[in-house]
Amino acid sequence: MFEVRIQTYWSDVDAAGIVYYPNFFRFVEHAEEELFRAAGKERQPLIEENQVWMPRVEAFSKFSKPIRHGAAIRVRLNPQFKGEKTIRYDFEILDDASSEKLAAGYVTVVCVDAERFKSMPIPAAIRNVIQHAQSST
Amino acid sequence: MFEVRIQTYWSDVDAAGIVYYPNFFRFVEHAEEELFRAAGKERQPLIEENQVWMPRVEAFSKFSKPIRHGAAIRVRLNPQFKGEKTIRYDFEILDDASSEKLAAGYVTVVCVDAERFKSMPIPAAIRNVIQHAQSST
Amino acid sequence: MFEVRIQTYWSDVDAAGIVYYPNFFRFVEHAEEELFRAAGKERQPLIEENQVWMPRVEAFSKFSKPIRHGAAIRVRLNPQFKGEKTIRYDFEILDDASSEKLAAGYVTVVCVDAERFKSMPIPAAIRNVIQHAQSST
Amino acid sequence: MFEVRIQTYWSDVDAAGIVYYPNFFRFVEHAEEELFRAAGKERQPLIEENQVWMPRVEAFSKFSKPIRHGAAIRVRLNPQFKGEKTIRYDFEILDDASSEKLAAGYVTVVCVDAERFKSMPIPAAIRNVIQHAQSST
Repeated sequence: MFEVRIQTYWSDVDAAGIVYYPNFFRFVEHAEEELFRAAGKERQPLIEENQVWMPRVEAFSKFSKPIRHGAAIRVRLNPQFKGEKTIRYDFEILDDASSEKLAAGYVTVVCVDAERFKSMPIPAAIRNVIQHAQSST
Repeated sequence: MFEVRIQTYWSDVDAAGIVYYPNFFRFVEHAEEELFRAAGKERQPLIEENQVWMPRVEAFSKFSKPIRHGAAIRVRLNPQFKGEKTIRYDFEILDDASSEKLAAGYVTVVCVDAERFKSMPIPAAIRNVIQHAQSST
Repeated sequence: MFEVRIQTYWSDVDAAGIVYYPNFFRFVEHAEEELFRAAGKERQPLIEENQVWMPRVEAFSKFSKPIRHGAAIRVRLNPQFKGEKTIRYDFEILDDASSEKLAAGYVTVVCVDAERFKSMPIPAAIRNVIQHAQSST
Repeated sequence: MFEVRIQTYWSDVDAAGIVYYPNFFRFVEHAEEELFRAAGKERQPLIEENQVWMPRVEAFSKFSKPIRHGAAIRVRLNPQFKGEKTIRYDFEILDDASSEKLAAGYVTVVCVDAERFKSMPIPAAIRNVIQHAQSST
């Protein structure tokens, strides 16, 4: 499990005064990048070194409560291996002050060979980062 | 069924040279706004007149192919009534040139009373717009 | 002079119900891309063919009136050559319905050799596109 | 002078692998919000309490160097009073690691009465926040 606190800003909200919902997925990706950073790696250079692409193949979220303008949130990631080639980032978004759950869902990522465009096993270096996050509490 | 053509821009793509995936949901909402416009209504004023909020409660997409930088797409909406209070916008995103399917999913919207914050039946004026889209081909 | 109509969407506005101001610059870039398209070219492939980068080096805007949610605007571009290596896109943003001026400013772009990272003269193919726009009315 | 460190993310970059330039202005506004927060206030509630609007009337930036993907930056704000009704946020954006200057400019904000839509003096509570930042080092 990996968790990161994110401050929301005026630029994230819509005319209803709440965070515009596609930004929830943006915050989940910020958390993914911080998960790599917490393991001592930058995601993009690591991906490039391993000659892999990691396209998103599915995304889902249930939105339970709005994120109010100016709120800080916590994004909690539970990455799961789904076979040899796929990572599913299960996520929850919590209000930082109240710990109330605001949203939950997942984003699924598949490893693709950057030269031949075929799916491939998750490179060991990336698998290690994910396992590092899984074993954290 | 309702369909709208959308031109993608440099501002929509990420460092992989393809449309950043949360923008797929943004395009689906552009299509929803155009669906109202095609029925002769602006979505937001209509919502406000009917003292209703229409928060998104779920969103899902499968991403089959990337949207390349500079591509035009077509967003196809098939709105479904799910009970008295809920609209589910089933969507497909197609490449405008090849008609290849790039993504498909849904966004679910619930009607909420803007004063008492309780779910409520879809107002007739909004139901009419959706039915207008359903009966189009 | 080149002009393009742009429909604004819910995703463009902030909690004040008006277009979030950095998006004005995004719309100016959409107009620039359409200026190339109107000359029969896609901007990015043309840039790459000419082994040039065109980084933005300055941007300015005066904001006279807000762009209301749901408004359509017109972005008017008057590109100027400033010496051999620089294009300055003077722009105005007008309300599409009333033609009222909402904003005006400029974005300055310099041509840089994509291999040696030195400024270089504007390639002829790009100069032609700009001249095509200049001679339009 | 007020300074805040901002981590950039994949969602901020364009297909050139550098931060998309309208996001520079977004980061400046994040810094402005943090300036208020550092003075113990949230910007938006404070604005609403004082029945004022603070529209942006001008924005300018010179872009000296790109912000590379994954870089952390520091946004440095030097807010200036320009008469009784206007604040000009002079800013610099620095690379967090090297302290190299990447961009510099300003954003000008005018106080407007939220009921009568006329310009008005900066409310004392907001003036205090700005002075608090001016006296910091």
